Amino acid sequence: MNFSSKLLENAVAEFSKLPGVGQKTALRLVLHLLKQDKADVERFSNSVTKLRNDIQHCRTCHNISDFTVCEICASRKRDHVTICVVEDTRDVMAIENTNQYTGVYHVLGGLISPMDGIGPSDLEIDSLVERMKAGEVREVIFALSATMEGDTTIFYLHKRLKEFKINFSTIARGIAFGGELEYVDEITLGRSIATRVPYESSLSK
Amino acid sequence: MNFSSKLLENAVAEFSKLPGVGQKTALRLVLHLLKQDKADVERFSNSVTKLRNDIQHCRTCHNISDFTVCEICASRKRDHVTICVVEDTRDVMAIENTNQYTGVYHVLGGLISPMDGIGPSDLEIDSLVERMKAGEVREVIFALSATMEGDTTIFYLHKRLKEFKINFSTIARGIAFGGELEYVDEITLGRSIATRVPYESSLSK
Repeated sequence: MNFSSKLLENAVAEFSKLPGVGQKTALRLVLHLLKQDKADVERFSNSVTKLRNDIQHCRTCHNISDFTVCEICASRKRDHVTICVVEDTRDVMAIENTNQYTGVYHVLGGLISPMDGIGPSDLEIDSLVERMKAGEVREVIFALSATMEGDTTIFYLHKRLKEFKINFSTIARGIAFGGELEYVDEITLGRSIATRVPYESSLSK
Repeated sequence: MNFSSKLLENAVAEFSKLPGVGQKTALRLVLHLLKQDKADVERFSNSVTKLRNDIQHCRTCHNISDFTVCEICASRKRDHVTICVVEDTRDVMAIENTNQYTGVYHVLGGLISPMDGIGPSDLEIDSLVERMKAGEVREVIFALSATMEGDTTIFYLHKRLKEFKINFSTIARGIAFGGELEYVDEITLGRSIATRVPYESSLSK
């Protein structure tokens, strides 16, 4: 592209680095900001810098937080004997939005993925083992993506954690609520038949 | 959404104000930035603040520029007797990318749109009239969108400028090169037939 200004070119180049943002979208976003008040633009860029500089990771569950211990880990209302293991912050937010879970979390910061060069030592796994050693945990729920990386990570975690005699569970897999049978992929459908549940227990919730 | 951090919530709210960016996209962009080095994030937000604070508008053509007179207006290689009137910077960039135009520009900063409360006085129209008064301009090309606002603006500009005895032209409208007839909308197709050109002159380029 043929920019009439170096400053503009620079800002567009920075925005283009964001995931899913091409040069045209970047230009649209930057020109939008250019039309805003200086104070608004200042607030925009400060929010990013401040987030990056001041954010912390909860020293217990490693979720991002404004404090050294996150609100969930610090809460007395939560059930601290149940740990839900998730990949990242977005998963914590998604589960919190369901209002179905009252336990605490452990954020791995990724999944084991040899293809991307991510091994167990790159994730918050040792710290999970440490939490187990305290001896209060009674259940670990693996709430990871139903992908090869997710399954590999669960397999590895279970191997590391099984010496602690507690319950291990994974979130239920199957057909989504409201899902129409004809659009469900074969693997999911096949497994849902294989792992069918007694009708009475399916009514329990 | 249920944010675990006020800082995060803040940054997501700021990104959500950008056009076409919803809360989920904003979260994805912000979490991406959070994974970058502090220096990279600093560079990102500086590029925006610097652009907003330091950008200028060329005092001749009103295009955005790093200097008081833009590179195009300052260039001796350009044909300064032909002015191409456009809505905004993006149009200048689009036309420059074609490498077909050697004249100079005049950026209106918008189109007349009573629906949006934009009248002639909100646009750089008086300054265009001033440029005409210098007496050197020989052609004005209206390169505005083929919409009601574009047509209204051309109509108004022509009324203001016709006292200067020069050539006025608009960019050609019709079927796009490579366009398949069956997918062309009726208005464009109808007008292309009505404004058909002699076969010989269609070969000229």
